[in-house]
Formats: sequence, structure tokens, C-alpha cells
Amino acid sequence: MSLTLSHFSGPDLSLRVMLSLKLFFDERIRLATPYGPQYQALWEAARQASDGGKKIRPALLIGTYQELGGDDTENAVQAATAFELLHTAFLLHDDVIDRDLIRRGRPNLIGAFASGAADRGVGSADAQLWGQASAILAGDLLIHSAQMMVASLAIPEARRAAMLDLLDRCVFVTAAGEHADVAFSSQVESPELPAVLAMTEHKTACYSFEGPLKAAAILADSGGFVLRTLGEFGRRVGIAFQLRDDLLGVFGDEAATGKSSTSDLREGKVTALLAYARLSIHQRELNELLARPQLTDADHAHLRSLVEQSGARSFVEKLIADHTEQALTLLESVDLPGNLRLRLRQVARDAAQRSV
Amino acid sequence: MSLTLSHFSGPDLSLRVMLSLKLFFDERIRLATPYGPQYQALWEAARQASDGGKKIRPALLIGTYQELGGDDTENAVQAATAFELLHTAFLLHDDVIDRDLIRRGRPNLIGAFASGAADRGVGSADAQLWGQASAILAGDLLIHSAQMMVASLAIPEARRAAMLDLLDRCVFVTAAGEHADVAFSSQVESPELPAVLAMTEHKTACYSFEGPLKAAAILADSGGFVLRTLGEFGRRVGIAFQLRDDLLGVFGDEAATGKSSTSDLREGKVTALLAYARLSIHQRELNELLARPQLTDADHAHLRSLVEQSGARSFVEKLIADHTEQALTLLESVDLPGNLRLRLRQVARDAAQRSV
Repeated sequence: MSLTLSHFSGPDLSLRVMLSLKLFFDERIRLATPYGPQYQALWEAARQASDGGKKIRPALLIGTYQELGGDDTENAVQAATAFELLHTAFLLHDDVIDRDLIRRGRPNLIGAFASGAADRGVGSADAQLWGQASAILAGDLLIHSAQMMVASLAIPEARRAAMLDLLDRCVFVTAAGEHADVAFSSQVESPELPAVLAMTEHKTACYSFEGPLKAAAILADSGGFVLRTLGEFGRRVGIAFQLRDDLLGVFGDEAATGKSSTSDLREGKVTALLAYARLSIHQRELNELLARPQLTDADHAHLRSLVEQSGARSFVEKLIADHTEQALTLLESVDLPGNLRLRLRQVARDAAQRSV
Repeated sequence: MSLTLSHFSGPDLSLRVMLSLKLFFDERIRLATPYGPQYQALWEAARQASDGGKKIRPALLIGTYQELGGDDTENAVQAATAFELLHTAFLLHDDVIDRDLIRRGRPNLIGAFASGAADRGVGSADAQLWGQASAILAGDLLIHSAQMMVASLAIPEARRAAMLDLLDRCVFVTAAGEHADVAFSSQVESPELPAVLAMTEHKTACYSFEGPLKAAAILADSGGFVLRTLGEFGRRVGIAFQLRDDLLGVFGDEAATGKSSTSDLREGKVTALLAYARLSIHQRELNELLARPQLTDADHAHLRSLVEQSGARSFVEKLIADHTEQALTLLESVDLPGNLRLRLRQVARDAAQRSV
């Protein structure tokens, strides 16, 4: 089971977001023409980076907006497109930071540019640098473009200001989470479990769930209580989503997730799962395994079993269940159109229970 | 002689931009508190990255705005602050791309974070990664913040839309120039001279001169002809400024510029100066020197002399003189307040002739 959410906003609106992305990139590629083939290729690669993926953020935003009674589809699609561009920008820079060359099962922008340069006889160090520089610039352009889209929404002044504040908060909080993530994985900090949980929340929940849901409420002019409740609902669901991600990163089915179930471990990612496991009597053995530059299949199996025995897996499952429960309770506390409540319940369950 | 321009906007307004930057960073550091000491340190370092420098962009924007009769200082200062933040963001990411650890004669953000981590016992590779990740995130935050400031200008709708379009163009063009710069220096492309000149223009002139001058005209509601003429004037002056930078990078006085006069050469930067020199009979000798991983003082002196003999230095001096001349002629073609014309003439001369 996955959280694709295309059913959430409906096929027509999914299509409109795809179209909006297509038109945005078409225009940018056209504008890039006078700046030469490399800049066009950069924009083409940025488009590819935004292809695929689950499009959770646009679906949540548009689906919720419509159920709240919003009928200005054009501006909702524009705001949804902005969240998707922001997401792509974060992924691009995340890959530079993590030195990843693969994303969604194929070479990412860095990998594609680096191997293109290598094919043209550029040395390995320069080719890597070219790949990384290209991804940094592509991410910069998309962060900027996401905000241009929000700043250009044709909506009443006060709502646009609220949308800008929301985006500002999302960027600020996500950067904080990402920065903490790197601090932990590079061992600049050795965090306690609460700090790891805070990082988990900041790097994902705000811009992926809380942000799109609040955006829907702002655009639909739903009032402060609905806005805050949907935001808090999104925060809880987002935490559950990310904790599930952490579990899938260690226990998931690689063939289904398309993500290596050892990459988190290899990169020394500090998750709530591992932070909890390290609190157990297996701490020394775990640290010794996690410090190895390479994990054999046997190491990995052993590591999984230690994490399991430490109680970390049940602890994270319990956290997911608690956050989901609280999210569902929140839905009952606010007057929402019945259909929206039903659909958000499903979102909360899918985010928590997905296997992909 | 330098192009500091603090005389251009006047000491009071220089101070107001400093104050605006201070207030912005104070607020962000305060907001970062709940996210832990590392995130606060990141914002503190972003503030330091924006310290110093010539503050050319704010001075040009505000000084021109006032001479055009603008009296809404608050919004002009806000727009000027946005251009300065954008500049800092570009410098931060430029240093990641170029793997530089020094900026303005002291450790840059990457260097400071990396050495801070090393002091805490973090291994060298992880410390570097931490420094680079921090600079990427700081740049992201400032790109975003620059645009927030423009999007939040309290000015009539049409002017704000024009300001957003201007910023959009500046970011788009600068990224194109930066991307081309990396393509050339990493030898992904072997450009002809015109492509090198285009890169020179794109990476600097648009956001440093054309942008701030056009912003002043938009904010002062000066009309299309003044806007376009100031923009074209800025483009010319910006090209002359960057070409002078290229000359100073090879022939400048290190003690005065605070910039190593071999760093451009070591990093394999492709400038119009070197591209022209390579067209000469000294091509083979130059390429051999430029390919060396280290240049001795004698190599460097030899290289300077080859560049000189190739006629490249005179060629670039001639280009600077031509662009400056055309910029000055443009000033005569448009009805500007006499004082503004006088001062912009001085800007054109300083940008072209500066030794620092």
C-alpha cells in the first residue's frame, strides 16, 4: 500500500498539476535557450527531477481546498505546483548534501550531469563537481520559482500575505530539520532521542503535510480554527509518515520501495529508530556495526535483528500509532465537510501504514 | 580606488541598510532558538557572511531611487536589503561550488563550520561535508528571504509585480552565468570568446547593476524609457566591473584586493582575459602553465607576461573602455535629474577603473 493520493485530489486535478508543472518547465526551457545548451539541459533535468514521485503535497492541497468549498482551481493548482517545486528543490540539495547519485531508482541530476561530462572526457573530480554545481543551481532556481508562484497568486492581499508567511515558515523549519539531520549523521552532534524526534518532524512534516493543508485552508478562507486544526493534523500525520519512512529504510522491501534498505544505515542517518536502539543493551554491538564502512548481507540481517530485539521497532510503531490516533481525534474536534473528514482519515491511515 | 558607493547613497542610508540587515538577522536568530544551537549558529554565520563587502547593490538602488525623487525610504531600504541578501546567497553557494574556504580574507561559512566540527573531533571528510551542507542551507534560506522581502514590499500591486519579475530575471540570468562559469572551468565546455563574454555579463551585471538600477526606477515609478536606459547603463557598467575584476584577479595587488591573484588561475577560471590570451601564439605555453596543479611565483610571473604579450590585457582594457563609454553616452540620452547623471557617471568610472 502506498500514499499516492491521486485518488485524493481526483484524476482531473492530478492532471492539472502535471500540466502546470509542464507549462512552467516548458517556459523556463524556452527562456533558457539564449543561454546555451547546458542551461537548457539544466532546466530539462530539473523537470525530470520533478517527474515521478507521489505528488502528495499537491494532492493534499487541492483535494482539501475543494472539499473546503474552494472553487478557484487555478490559484489552488498554482499553489500546489509551488509546493511540488519546493519539494523537488529540497530533494536536489539533499542529494548534494548526502553525496547521493541515485534517486527514485535512476541517476539523479548530479549523476546524470557527472556521467554526461565523463562521457565527454572530463576527469572524474571535475565531472563530480559539475554534477554537484548543477544540482545546487537547479535547487536554487526551484526554491526561487516556488516562491515566485506563491507571490504571484491572484488572490486577495491578506490571503497572499498569509500564504507567503506559511511558505516562509515551511522553508525555515525544513532547513532547520535538514541542518539537524546533517549535524547528527556527520556526528557534529550526538543527540538525545527528543532531538532526533524533533528533527524528524521538522525536515518533513511542515512542508509536506502541515504546509499544504494550511495552504488549502488559507486559500479557501476557512478561518483560524480550521486552519490550526488542519495544521496540527498535518504535523501529526507528517511525523507518522516520516517515522514509517525510517522503518521502511531498515525493514522495508527494497523491490517495493525502490530505495536501498541499507542506504540510511550506510550514510549514518540518525533516526528515532536507531537512536532508541542505541539506548539498549545492544548499544556497543550496534555502534560497532554502524561504524563499518561496508555492511555485508549478514551484518545487515544482524543489525535488523538487534534493532528488533532492542524494542526500537515496537517503540516507533507505537509512536506512529499514537500520532495517527491523535490526528484522527483532531479531525473530530472541528467542523469539517463530512467528505473531507472521511478522506483525511484515509490519508492519516495511509501515511502511517504504507509499505511503499 | 574602490567602488564602495557609500558616498552614493549617503551615510544615513548606508546605515539604514545595515540596520535593516541587522534586524532581519536578529529576528531570524531569535526564531531559530527553538531549533537548537546549530541552527542559531547557522543564522549567525549567515549574518557574518553578509557583513563587510562593498554593499554596491543597496547603495546603487537607494541612491538612484532618491535622486529619481522617491521618498518612500522604507520600501527602498527593504528592496535594497533583498538584493544584498541575494548577493550573499550567491557568494555562499559559489564558495560551495568552487570548494573555497576563504572569503574576504577570513574563513567563509564552510571553513568556519568545518573547522568548528574538526575541533570537536569530527573527522575531516565529515567536517567538510558539514561545512558544505551548512553553506548550501544558508544560501537556500537567503535566496528565499530575499524574495520574501520583495514579495512583502508595501507598494502598489503593479510595481510589486514588476519587482518580482525583475528579481526573477536576475536569479534566472545569474544562475545561467554561474552554470556557464562552472561548465568552462570544469572543462565540460571549451567556449569561444563570445560565450565567455556572455558568461561574464550574466553572472554579475544583471543582479549587481542592472537589477538594482531597474529596481530604483520601478520603485520611483519612473516610466519605461528611464527604466530601460538605466538597465542598459547598468548592464554595461556591470560588464566593465566584472572585466576589471578578471584583470585584478591576475594583475591586481593582492594586499589591496584581499584576494589571491593566483586563485582564478589555480581554479581554472575561464575569463575573457585568458580566453583571448589562448587565441595567441602563446597558446600552447599558456595551456601548459594553466594545467599545472601548482604555480610557483616564477610560473605566475611568466604567465602574467605571456598574457600581457598576447595582447589580452589591452584587449580587455579596450572592452572596459568601450562599455564605459557606451554607458556614459546612454546617460546623455535620457532625461535624468542632473545630480543623478553626475553620480552615475562617477559610478561608471569607478567600476571601470577601480584597483580594489
